[in-house]
Amino acid sequence: MVKHIIVRTSGQGLYEFTSKVEAVVRAAGCAEGLCTVLVQHTSASLLIQENADPSARRDLEAWLTRLVPENDPIYTHTDEGSDDMPSHLKAALTATTLSIPVVEGRLGLGTWQGIYLWEHRHRGSDRKCLVHATE
Amino acid sequence: MVKHIIVRTSGQGLYEFTSKVEAVVRAAGCAEGLCTVLVQHTSASLLIQENADPSARRDLEAWLTRLVPENDPIYTHTDEGSDDMPSHLKAALTATTLSIPVVEGRLGLGTWQGIYLWEHRHRGSDRKCLVHATE
Amino acid sequence: MVKHIIVRTSGQGLYEFTSKVEAVVRAAGCAEGLCTVLVQHTSASLLIQENADPSARRDLEAWLTRLVPENDPIYTHTDEGSDDMPSHLKAALTATTLSIPVVEGRLGLGTWQGIYLWEHRHRGSDRKCLVHATE
Repeated sequence: MVKHIIVRTSGQGLYEFTSKVEAVVRAAGCAEGLCTVLVQHTSASLLIQENADPSARRDLEAWLTRLVPENDPIYTHTDEGSDDMPSHLKAALTATTLSIPVVEGRLGLGTWQGIYLWEHRHRGSDRKCLVHATE
Repeated sequence: MVKHIIVRTSGQGLYEFTSKVEAVVRAAGCAEGLCTVLVQHTSASLLIQENADPSARRDLEAWLTRLVPENDPIYTHTDEGSDDMPSHLKAALTATTLSIPVVEGRLGLGTWQGIYLWEHRHRGSDRKCLVHATE
Repeated sequence: MVKHIIVRTSGQGLYEFTSKVEAVVRAAGCAEGLCTVLVQHTSASLLIQENADPSARRDLEAWLTRLVPENDPIYTHTDEGSDDMPSHLKAALTATTLSIPVVEGRLGLGTWQGIYLWEHRHRGSDRKCLVHATE
């Protein structure tokens, strides 16, 4: 089963959507299997990270933005704004696809793991993902 | 179905091979399913990125090469040339495997997404990938 | 088939566990198929890298630790120790899931590729992974 899902963002940062992925696994009726997520954009990415303490997510955002700042003179691809090329770079350094084994009808994530969409543009938008779940 | 494919490179940079992956999906006759790509090298990697404007790809290459320069005194693994250790590092920071849901017999990529092999060595070569496609 | 496996670590660095993943593929009896690995932690990650020369792995560790040092004043998430936030960042920059096609009953890795768990904490521990293998 493949489902389209939307993750709505309102600016840069990490947005958890584990429950939306879990809903596709339940709808597919997998007891044991595999679940794959793809983000259909090149200026947002995917991350499995700690879902306990929000300070870890704030630090991830701050650190990555310092590593890949706006207005770096190395950029030539600047027509779509100062956050465009940093977005592509941040997406390249993180994940566009994730594959998660399914165990006993649920995503086989660790206790503290959640699935996040990482929005790299200042302007939020409706980010499209595909979720595939199979026995 | 698993197929071996070759992506020929002629130096550092991003080489699109979406159509070769798409051909495996068609040959497998998947209507809905999953397609996985693995690059069988540790000095090249995979990237899903923007296929519209070549300037974004040039900037990706320039930025990553500045982050991971040759001849860094931290390197001890230097026998195979000055681009050897940077190649391993660039591969570690990007992807070696990608998994893409198949929808209506086609790769479920976003409008502007293409699949690229990222060559990290100066000397191009025939880079081997495995493509798995299944219902 | 989904199996839980443990990779025991004794401090920061790369620990090969290709043979443990290969054992799951054999147990599943796949001739051709797909094998997926997930690490169930947010302070360790996965890497497919060169298994020939240990110097490449030492350089990977040294370079990444220089890029993501401890005690960076940008960190606010510091309760669990000075290696906590660097661990999350290193995990975000590398892989949490890997998917490897299976060919002739074996992982379709390249000649020099091995599967590694990358431990990012000083204190080693028993790291849990899930391995899914299917035709």
